[in-house]
Amino acid sequence: MSEASAFPRTIAVVGLGLVGGSLVRSFARLPSRPRVLGSSLDARDRAGAERVPGVTVSADGMDIVGEADLVIYAVPMGAVIELLAKHAERIRPDALVTDVAGLKRPVLEAARAAGLGERFVGSHPMAGGEGAGFDAGRADLFENARVWLCAEKAAKAAATNRLDEFWSGLGARPEWIDPDKHDLLMVRVSHLPQLVSNALALALESARVDPNDLGPGGRDMTRLAASSPGMWTDLLEHSTSDAAGLLRSVASQIDELAKSLEKGDMKKVAKLMKRTREWRSGK
Amino acid sequence: MSEASAFPRTIAVVGLGLVGGSLVRSFARLPSRPRVLGSSLDARDRAGAERVPGVTVSADGMDIVGEADLVIYAVPMGAVIELLAKHAERIRPDALVTDVAGLKRPVLEAARAAGLGERFVGSHPMAGGEGAGFDAGRADLFENARVWLCAEKAAKAAATNRLDEFWSGLGARPEWIDPDKHDLLMVRVSHLPQLVSNALALALESARVDPNDLGPGGRDMTRLAASSPGMWTDLLEHSTSDAAGLLRSVASQIDELAKSLEKGDMKKVAKLMKRTREWRSGK
Repeated sequence: MSEASAFPRTIAVVGLGLVGGSLVRSFARLPSRPRVLGSSLDARDRAGAERVPGVTVSADGMDIVGEADLVIYAVPMGAVIELLAKHAERIRPDALVTDVAGLKRPVLEAARAAGLGERFVGSHPMAGGEGAGFDAGRADLFENARVWLCAEKAAKAAATNRLDEFWSGLGARPEWIDPDKHDLLMVRVSHLPQLVSNALALALESARVDPNDLGPGGRDMTRLAASSPGMWTDLLEHSTSDAAGLLRSVASQIDELAKSLEKGDMKKVAKLMKRTREWRSGK
Repeated sequence: MSEASAFPRTIAVVGLGLVGGSLVRSFARLPSRPRVLGSSLDARDRAGAERVPGVTVSADGMDIVGEADLVIYAVPMGAVIELLAKHAERIRPDALVTDVAGLKRPVLEAARAAGLGERFVGSHPMAGGEGAGFDAGRADLFENARVWLCAEKAAKAAATNRLDEFWSGLGARPEWIDPDKHDLLMVRVSHLPQLVSNALALALESARVDPNDLGPGGRDMTRLAASSPGMWTDLLEHSTSDAAGLLRSVASQIDELAKSLEKGDMKKVAKLMKRTREWRSGK
């Protein structure tokens, strides 16, 4: 590893929820622990982060971004966009900047508009969990998780290398992808399952099902229904037409299944189930 | 524990897939290990079970049911119904008989028709997992899992007590329920999530999504899509009209979400997501 791409010495984490809280915990386990500055508007999340060794917290991100050589935004995408513009002048000229939002094109555009294009690399760790807030975080959240990385052409090679090595240092699997390709993929593999989980939960709630009566399969299928509405509406605002189209294709698959059941055409149902089993198990 | 309700000494497990294979493994960990006889038409499942200490295997269930004081059918529901009729005469008069199928009314009726009504108790462990077959089983599958128990009025108290204690002995949480109530609940908490997972997988497959690109949420939402078509069509044959109606209610919730997205009505989307979050987290 070259001198330029050494692990950052001072890291600012703006947002101390599930992802920010997991980052802070994972830094504390590193062999040579960086200095960590965290900020959150939420007093409980701040209190949680304060208990982690080597972490100093503040309510306002503005207090911490000026000291770091790596600034990470771990807040919903709308807040990332807002804060990049607000913090840009305060961020050190040699600092690297990233975020963890679920879409990358809108964030890259905001970084460029804020004059951070050369030093900004977007990250999207494919890691999450049940619950929200600092307490829901885990030190091993990023271990072996794929982390999508996106940068504009203006980004300097030193910046992209440093971020790649940063995630590898946490045990994650960073992978570069074109931002538009990433965002379209996310509508399919992330936004769509999220909305289907919400729709299933709405139907179960309307049928007055007690969530405690769910088995492991039903729990898996409704876990996402407990996700943060704020985080999701932020993302969905940027994917509405693609997501709506895909939702309709799920609805029509559901109708197809309902029709086959009503007809008692179990051969058709078995055929569709075989198709999904083959797809899911990668055959 | 009374003498009558002691843990069975010889157990026959008909079917050595994920559930049967897990049963066999869990027996091997008991402080006083019962004699275990297993049967499966599948040579690989038989070979797996043969490696478990204290287990003797056979291809045909007929060879093993006559020796046991507890007979457990761990095969798809259609096969349970068929085998109860076929094996009834061979089963010891003092033996207790159960199954693990996902619906209980059809099985209870088959047991009564086979003359086993007094000694039959239906079980439905709310436990499962990714994959199928013996190799997908786990010794701890039933630990802390809810196991629904159903019996007809004709069932003897000694039988119901013994089965209750059998499941408790494996660390599970047995709970009695009326069979019709159970079956209606299962259509909601089990068949519906299953079919929605299939529909989502069909939509993702049609959009040519690589399942390796799914994140943890997308993986959870499509895990059930890899379930056994044979097991499911067997169950769905008995729940078609209820399942179809519920499916349509999910489809209409999906349409509702798609419309809100197209209108850009993020307040509505946020409101629905808040509702599902509250429902799922039991508030």
